[in-house]
Amino acid sequence: MNEFELIARYFRPSLKRAVLGGGDDCALWQPSPGQQWAISSDMLVEGRHFLPSVSPYLLGHKALAVNLSDLAACGAQPLAFTLALALPSIDEGWLQAFSGGLLALADVHGCELIGGDTTRGPLNICITVFGEVPPGQALLRSGAKVQDQVWVSGALGGARAGLEALLGRLHLSEQHLQAARHRLEAPQPRVALGLALRGLASAAADLSDGLLGDLGHILAASGVGARLDADALLQAAHPVLQAVGSTQALNWCLCGGDDYELVFTAPPQQHQAVLDAAARVGVPVTCIGEIVPGSGLQVQHANGQAHSLDGLRAFDHFATP
Amino acid sequence: MNEFELIARYFRPSLKRAVLGGGDDCALWQPSPGQQWAISSDMLVEGRHFLPSVSPYLLGHKALAVNLSDLAACGAQPLAFTLALALPSIDEGWLQAFSGGLLALADVHGCELIGGDTTRGPLNICITVFGEVPPGQALLRSGAKVQDQVWVSGALGGARAGLEALLGRLHLSEQHLQAARHRLEAPQPRVALGLALRGLASAAADLSDGLLGDLGHILAASGVGARLDADALLQAAHPVLQAVGSTQALNWCLCGGDDYELVFTAPPQQHQAVLDAAARVGVPVTCIGEIVPGSGLQVQHANGQAHSLDGLRAFDHFATP
Repeated sequence: MNEFELIARYFRPSLKRAVLGGGDDCALWQPSPGQQWAISSDMLVEGRHFLPSVSPYLLGHKALAVNLSDLAACGAQPLAFTLALALPSIDEGWLQAFSGGLLALADVHGCELIGGDTTRGPLNICITVFGEVPPGQALLRSGAKVQDQVWVSGALGGARAGLEALLGRLHLSEQHLQAARHRLEAPQPRVALGLALRGLASAAADLSDGLLGDLGHILAASGVGARLDADALLQAAHPVLQAVGSTQALNWCLCGGDDYELVFTAPPQQHQAVLDAAARVGVPVTCIGEIVPGSGLQVQHANGQAHSLDGLRAFDHFATP
Repeated sequence: MNEFELIARYFRPSLKRAVLGGGDDCALWQPSPGQQWAISSDMLVEGRHFLPSVSPYLLGHKALAVNLSDLAACGAQPLAFTLALALPSIDEGWLQAFSGGLLALADVHGCELIGGDTTRGPLNICITVFGEVPPGQALLRSGAKVQDQVWVSGALGGARAGLEALLGRLHLSEQHLQAARHRLEAPQPRVALGLALRGLASAAADLSDGLLGDLGHILAASGVGARLDADALLQAAHPVLQAVGSTQALNWCLCGGDDYELVFTAPPQQHQAVLDAAARVGVPVTCIGEIVPGSGLQVQHANGQAHSLDGLRAFDHFATP
């Protein structure tokens, strides 16, 4: 099977809204009038973004999910994506499963595969995704204001617990292991929530590297600080974190990585509107703190005691694993 | 240096026409009204698309050049690109040179770096490029008609001679080696020619895998065949191919790979207009044959004898090197 047969068999671009899909030098797209395009690229490398043991179906899912998560964090509607794939060899079973997981998630979000590239090389998956958003309505990192509330969607730290369990560093019950592994390997991009937060959220980011890093980007871009409530944060912790102490649970909420939830800020008078919007799209959200003057992140217990962030750091794709 | 510092230092996205560059979850772009977007991705892997000995400056140049070449083949005006980069380690000298070559070519074509991703892993460069073209004016592979003339830009086979020389399989004079190596390592995307061919060319593709493969795509997409003139093809051969026999020279014109010239078709009555357009943008073009009924490619010498294509095949990124 050569490069062109491989693409035709497993990744035949769809032609719903594309003027011209793959099979030419470029894909051709006609953007909707009065829309801006939101564009994001993510590259996944074996051993760093996924374990060799992951099912190829879920790997295909996750490769697109992490990109859709960036669109979600901008409040953009997914439209299309390109896939560049380096493969050590052609394994048809692997390709069948990988493309199955990838295209199933693409279908769910109406996001068309419009082109890409395949080559031989160490396993590497690079997706570039396109979405659209009306001008001025994108959720940016730079809009957080003092007194805004800080929110997160879904449950935090579960993916990290899954990783630790798979690496043999954490023992979980079989049921918790399944749940944690699902969080790690099958993240659900919060696209509907991102769309629902247009006009409500003042700033947003997706949680790929953990709150410390990703909320940190919002704080830096907005020129503000944040005070988080440790108890609220523990309420947003994934149930599997009951298997570890509360300090560890807090730390994994803060820098677990790979949760692909949204962290966002909104004015306090929008509190109920945020809850309503989240309920409408069926995604739980938790208010975990507020924006304060200054810079940086602090986490406080109910008794006023600070949770130490010493030695914690956001996940960094250049740090040694 | 972490991921964010690396991006800020070497790949700070520009903000000329972007509404919002990197540093948020997505780049935001406002397409021009009445334009279609042309989108292409190419992934480069060490040992397959470039030799470890290549200068990082030229590698940066080539990584973008091969993507711009796809836009050129569509007649699209480059606008922006994303870069995803997997690096085995952070080598600041390498990054300085790589980003220098990349951004210098981007500047030449007014093509803005608007976002991307960096991660640790085996060296892998994945660029997705965006261009625009008025609806209906893109040069497609599917428009070739019987009696159209077949043209190529520039000189063919030089990149292959450079590769063979670097691998020690071809001896070239020092001057020829420099020229051939330049063809291999510093291809010039034919963007201006692609724009000039709007409304003239009936079909076009860029030559990444050699004529046999890339003209082959035009023939298959258009449902036609082509008869090429061996002497005309030799006129389009790069001068360094004088170092090899004419059979070898023809073969490297047909399946040398990495030339990044354009192959295109145009009606015979546009012959002079094609020459004029090419002269206007300063790119030599050669008429090498014509489109015929049927399918597939044949190459004929002046005496009517066929040049055998037996055993020749287009470059395939999945074939063993």
